[in-house]
Amino acid sequence: MKQTAEPKVLRDPIHGYIHVSEQVVWDCINAREMQRLRRIHQLGGDFQIYHAAEHSRFSHSLGVYEIVRRMVNEIKELRDGLSEFEKVTVMLAGLLHDIGHGPFSHAFEAISVCSHEQYTVSIILQDTQIHRILAAVDARLPQAVADIITYSHPNDILNQMVSGQLDADRMDYLLRDAYFTGTSYGNFDLERMIRTIRIDKQRLCVKQSGIHSVEDYIMARYHMYWQVYLHPAARSYEGMLERLFQRMKDIYRKDAQALAQVGMFHPFLADREANVEELFHLDEAAALYGLSLLRSHEDAVLADLARRVLDRDLFAYLTVQDEAQAERVIEKVKQARYDSTYYVFCDHASQMPYSPYQRNEEGHNIWILGEDGTVRELSMASDIVHALCREKLKEDRKVYFPKALLESVME
Amino acid sequence: MKQTAEPKVLRDPIHGYIHVSEQVVWDCINAREMQRLRRIHQLGGDFQIYHAAEHSRFSHSLGVYEIVRRMVNEIKELRDGLSEFEKVTVMLAGLLHDIGHGPFSHAFEAISVCSHEQYTVSIILQDTQIHRILAAVDARLPQAVADIITYSHPNDILNQMVSGQLDADRMDYLLRDAYFTGTSYGNFDLERMIRTIRIDKQRLCVKQSGIHSVEDYIMARYHMYWQVYLHPAARSYEGMLERLFQRMKDIYRKDAQALAQVGMFHPFLADREANVEELFHLDEAAALYGLSLLRSHEDAVLADLARRVLDRDLFAYLTVQDEAQAERVIEKVKQARYDSTYYVFCDHASQMPYSPYQRNEEGHNIWILGEDGTVRELSMASDIVHALCREKLKEDRKVYFPKALLESVME
Amino acid sequence: MKQTAEPKVLRDPIHGYIHVSEQVVWDCINAREMQRLRRIHQLGGDFQIYHAAEHSRFSHSLGVYEIVRRMVNEIKELRDGLSEFEKVTVMLAGLLHDIGHGPFSHAFEAISVCSHEQYTVSIILQDTQIHRILAAVDARLPQAVADIITYSHPNDILNQMVSGQLDADRMDYLLRDAYFTGTSYGNFDLERMIRTIRIDKQRLCVKQSGIHSVEDYIMARYHMYWQVYLHPAARSYEGMLERLFQRMKDIYRKDAQALAQVGMFHPFLADREANVEELFHLDEAAALYGLSLLRSHEDAVLADLARRVLDRDLFAYLTVQDEAQAERVIEKVKQARYDSTYYVFCDHASQMPYSPYQRNEEGHNIWILGEDGTVRELSMASDIVHALCREKLKEDRKVYFPKALLESVME
Amino acid sequence: MKQTAEPKVLRDPIHGYIHVSEQVVWDCINAREMQRLRRIHQLGGDFQIYHAAEHSRFSHSLGVYEIVRRMVNEIKELRDGLSEFEKVTVMLAGLLHDIGHGPFSHAFEAISVCSHEQYTVSIILQDTQIHRILAAVDARLPQAVADIITYSHPNDILNQMVSGQLDADRMDYLLRDAYFTGTSYGNFDLERMIRTIRIDKQRLCVKQSGIHSVEDYIMARYHMYWQVYLHPAARSYEGMLERLFQRMKDIYRKDAQALAQVGMFHPFLADREANVEELFHLDEAAALYGLSLLRSHEDAVLADLARRVLDRDLFAYLTVQDEAQAERVIEKVKQARYDSTYYVFCDHASQMPYSPYQRNEEGHNIWILGEDGTVRELSMASDIVHALCREKLKEDRKVYFPKALLESVME
Repeated sequence: MKQTAEPKVLRDPIHGYIHVSEQVVWDCINAREMQRLRRIHQLGGDFQIYHAAEHSRFSHSLGVYEIVRRMVNEIKELRDGLSEFEKVTVMLAGLLHDIGHGPFSHAFEAISVCSHEQYTVSIILQDTQIHRILAAVDARLPQAVADIITYSHPNDILNQMVSGQLDADRMDYLLRDAYFTGTSYGNFDLERMIRTIRIDKQRLCVKQSGIHSVEDYIMARYHMYWQVYLHPAARSYEGMLERLFQRMKDIYRKDAQALAQVGMFHPFLADREANVEELFHLDEAAALYGLSLLRSHEDAVLADLARRVLDRDLFAYLTVQDEAQAERVIEKVKQARYDSTYYVFCDHASQMPYSPYQRNEEGHNIWILGEDGTVRELSMASDIVHALCREKLKEDRKVYFPKALLESVME
Repeated sequence: MKQTAEPKVLRDPIHGYIHVSEQVVWDCINAREMQRLRRIHQLGGDFQIYHAAEHSRFSHSLGVYEIVRRMVNEIKELRDGLSEFEKVTVMLAGLLHDIGHGPFSHAFEAISVCSHEQYTVSIILQDTQIHRILAAVDARLPQAVADIITYSHPNDILNQMVSGQLDADRMDYLLRDAYFTGTSYGNFDLERMIRTIRIDKQRLCVKQSGIHSVEDYIMARYHMYWQVYLHPAARSYEGMLERLFQRMKDIYRKDAQALAQVGMFHPFLADREANVEELFHLDEAAALYGLSLLRSHEDAVLADLARRVLDRDLFAYLTVQDEAQAERVIEKVKQARYDSTYYVFCDHASQMPYSPYQRNEEGHNIWILGEDGTVRELSMASDIVHALCREKLKEDRKVYFPKALLESVME
Repeated sequence: MKQTAEPKVLRDPIHGYIHVSEQVVWDCINAREMQRLRRIHQLGGDFQIYHAAEHSRFSHSLGVYEIVRRMVNEIKELRDGLSEFEKVTVMLAGLLHDIGHGPFSHAFEAISVCSHEQYTVSIILQDTQIHRILAAVDARLPQAVADIITYSHPNDILNQMVSGQLDADRMDYLLRDAYFTGTSYGNFDLERMIRTIRIDKQRLCVKQSGIHSVEDYIMARYHMYWQVYLHPAARSYEGMLERLFQRMKDIYRKDAQALAQVGMFHPFLADREANVEELFHLDEAAALYGLSLLRSHEDAVLADLARRVLDRDLFAYLTVQDEAQAERVIEKVKQARYDSTYYVFCDHASQMPYSPYQRNEEGHNIWILGEDGTVRELSMASDIVHALCREKLKEDRKVYFPKALLESVME
Repeated sequence: MKQTAEPKVLRDPIHGYIHVSEQVVWDCINAREMQRLRRIHQLGGDFQIYHAAEHSRFSHSLGVYEIVRRMVNEIKELRDGLSEFEKVTVMLAGLLHDIGHGPFSHAFEAISVCSHEQYTVSIILQDTQIHRILAAVDARLPQAVADIITYSHPNDILNQMVSGQLDADRMDYLLRDAYFTGTSYGNFDLERMIRTIRIDKQRLCVKQSGIHSVEDYIMARYHMYWQVYLHPAARSYEGMLERLFQRMKDIYRKDAQALAQVGMFHPFLADREANVEELFHLDEAAALYGLSLLRSHEDAVLADLARRVLDRDLFAYLTVQDEAQAERVIEKVKQARYDSTYYVFCDHASQMPYSPYQRNEEGHNIWILGEDGTVRELSMASDIVHALCREKLKEDRKVYFPKALLESVME
């Protein structure tokens, strides 16, 4: 594998330095599809609350690459057991795993017929700068990278490294999001984690002596989810974005011409898969500019929602006990003559696909390797994780609506 | 002064929390002109090198406000000596001082007929959301805030707090830029600095016992300038942006219609002052979207420069000894049939208006208050700053040109 | 209350600065009984494992004082609700709470007829420098401080602040021990904790919105206990110290003269309460010097144990399943002709009085104050703490014995 | 070289982990002469001011070892150019370089006929546990280690690594002392420093691109010296210790029996070289215990000075302009009937052998390796260091005397 003339390093607040010595990695970093990620925030709506969390998917992608690179170099079984080709493949998969993301993260995905993983695969396999860089090294490389990203590489360890339960993706984003939000919650001991990872029967495991860092990591996930990712104001922002996109779709279906000025959104409004060129052009700058044009759209609902999103005029929320109470709020929104399709929405946290860790029947678990060589699933090895898993999920039901109605709703 | 219902706090990685208890401050933070600053990066081209330094002017503005707020509350002479009105005025000036910034910081200012300070004043005094919020509190408030920002408030201490030599602006950006770049260079002891600031004859001074923190702060400036702000790759990015804007202007002058699709730039291309509404709409999202449209512009130079900026295809550089050597590089660029107006530029660091600290005849100095009550200018009180000031400036002359020419230029 | 001429500050890595403005606090810090705490390590045996955790009880005491000082100034109900006398009393109680500690922490206490709390009270109430400083301010002050330390002050809030479940003592030692060990486990968000503490019906509570920082704090306790405080090598060191003291006692009972050279230990060997002067002289320097004299004692067991402790020749350990397996190890130690009274001991973690948090029937709980004003005990308000409390304790049974026997024991 | 059964790691707040994989290193760490360093503070009197700086020479020694280990593994020319034997030798020299230190650092050395380096060499070459461990590996090893410590190893690079201008000793103590004092002053970018060190003609150099980290390192030295190491209160403590030891010597010369109870000091009082066994027993615990016995010595001066040192009743100081003013203070001390031999002393900072960096004619310089392969001495390559070197030293003349005289002296 061709090396760079001299090792490259990029200063990074999480990892100290990102180290690059393979030319293909360096070229991918400089490819236009990667550079585009500089124009997409890592956290969809969260920097609406944590104002300093303005980092991009580009920074995060470098971080994931760096963790994979360290795993491959510092975990003895990987250093000795993987081929050079496999090592570069999995580092590239770490680097490129988010390359198909659109603006605003999950809110945007909600209106797209394709997931960001599908778009990622398209960018890697179709005619893009990234694809050409990979294919020039080895014709099999694009597919091998894509296989890891779709969790279907024949060497299952590689899949686990990028998107398992002890994956580089999650490790980087917890540390990075904690650093940029300025909370201490997402911290865990990455050094010790990497030092205690072992491979047993094609599974990433953590040695018994590292179980405390795993518990800490699970708690980091728990806290970051409740404190950052599911923060009500972030949910409010994302919910408003979803309604805004919905309104666009509803208008587009009736009269596409009415949205002529926001051409960047058309593939998505038309409910078709965007091609790689369309996707390339839809970064967050384009999306925000599109929204800024909509501030003065003739459709009052659309214009109002665009203004709210841009000026951070977030919906207020009320925590409700049950469906009935939620209905009463919705009724008040209607009475105030707001269109309830766009101006009110519910959020039910325990329905959301999240828990810091759950035992998984299909085997996507965290495994603990005992001193005697036996392997146990994490919740069997850790009292605290066991406790967490048995606990029924926190119920958290909220209704969101325009701030102006706060008083009337509270009555 | 009306207080918020309860004290508001915003989590911030530099200050722990930003504390807000005046309603007018809270309302200004939520005004659309402030929210726009979320869409403008703090560091023009620097996050091209320090990938994690993606923070916005919004975060920085909150930080400046917080330092002013602490000064006003923790420095005894200010706490006791300023009126409530002055306190709120100077906190607001800290918060709003950057509100007139356009995208890409200095590169953009280079093509604008107005400075960002002038635009800031316009936003505060003309009919904007910010103005209405301020005026509603007190008809004199907008002008008082603007006076501080133009360094012309009758109470000179207020001017110094926001843009003197020991100002909250610089203190926040050094700490913040260091944090987000991930370097340790910009750190200094803010706690101790604030603890040792005193007022003497209408001048902010630092007590003798705090002189080490001042030296550290000057060194932080020194290092950040050379390591971050004047980094050659940042200069390359900014130089390219300037040439790109120049090319737009040159085209616009001949045929404004040829740039119809990038209407957001027109006021600036026409060399007139933008009105507050035009400026409001020109955030970095709009500018980047404009550049992305120019990727496919029929003017090949414009399209190429836009692509280079967006895809980070930076000009390479060569350090040269003198004018003559620079000329030889320029000649080679011409020979390679590049238009030298746009494809080559020089940068001469010692000409740049920077040194970490220089004694200023007009009195804009850092003052050290001795135990005996005498006040000395910093370079008279500190050996190390004295040494720095006597040193002749580091000469650093570089020529920038397309990377493709690197080999031929090096011959 | 007399103020110091100017506010005093002491640089501290945990709190930034320790702030002192009452003369009585400053005088107590400089009293010889406080200065003695510089010669007693905070962590008994733990710095045998975490080599950098060499901080003293003096540093910790300053930290506890600082947290109490902040509570008293930053929690509105305390700032407004406590009298000046109460404020100073509780700050002093924080400062002085550990003043009766002897060397080696718990190992030493095991051979003493008095607890360190009893000695603390003696120092405050009897004729000492500390006592004279306190009494000179107000004749009632020594008793008031002692009351808080014995958890019997009529204003129960003061007791809770120093040694409740949300007490300054624990908050400081978790943060401090984490910092000096170099682990990240003990970190929690002190800022947010203090910001969300409220008083309800004479109980310290935390607002619902601060529950995540409380959970984080409980987890910090959990991790620090298992990773630091109950670390097997720390237990080994402490167990050896206990056996060493036991051997001294056994010899002393038969022939006090045989221990003439280690007079500093005599009050403790005689199983009587030491007077304040004897206690004053028994710091860790004296104790370690005493042990170094015992290196060459004619009693071979005593000399050997002293050498082991000083040279860190720690007992090895084996994790055993049950009593029977432990017995087999003990048998081997006997077969190897070691005196099993001193050369083998068991440690059974679930018997130890520790769990990161347990609901307490007598009301010593952490209370969560809901938005609606209702107060719930923490494990009722937090799923994760609820889970922790229901979990049966981790069983952890270890036997410790001379390293030289490791192979034969493992057979 | 024999490896440990598995790599050992020790948690360390400065370096994350200390990594050990050679059995001889591990055995030396566990030797009783190394363990003794746990009972000697790293900073003589400084933790009298920075209360948290209570770390020992043991921690520091591990840190020096770790930096040497990293140099040897991460600097290509060393990794490839040194033999295995040289690598282990220099790592051991880093670990053992302080092993001959007595209590209280420099104050103690002032009364000793031998330097701590001489004692270090004795411990390595004479019959000690350390010596036996080294000699068992290779008969030449003790001498080779001692050669590096005396800066006389034939491979000069090894000498420079441990005690040159870019040595592991200084790098560790700056970082470590900064961490434990809680100041930010001593920080510099160790990562980058190690990454940019090169070897040129048997000299350690730093690449031009690393010059900013070298400047930062010089500034760290500058700040730590003035803020910590030369802090007046630390000087006061050390000066008092010197006078205390002087008083002991003066008494001992007349009547050795009068100091029978403090036998641990006798070799030093007798002005002879202590043997390794005597030195081994004189750790800080012994010395402090000795002082505590002197509290009640019949010689009033000795008893008073011992009490002052133990209870931190430090001498006050006055900054004076010249010799004459110093004389006037001394006169007042005499008038107050204090014995001026012990109760007053001067301190003249510019006479002290310190400056953060000076060009050295014998070649002990920091060298900067240019991109063109030329090597320049640091002050020729760095404007800021050049400025520092030209500056005449800060004059700082202080007189110390009993606090009780403060008012009369100030008159």
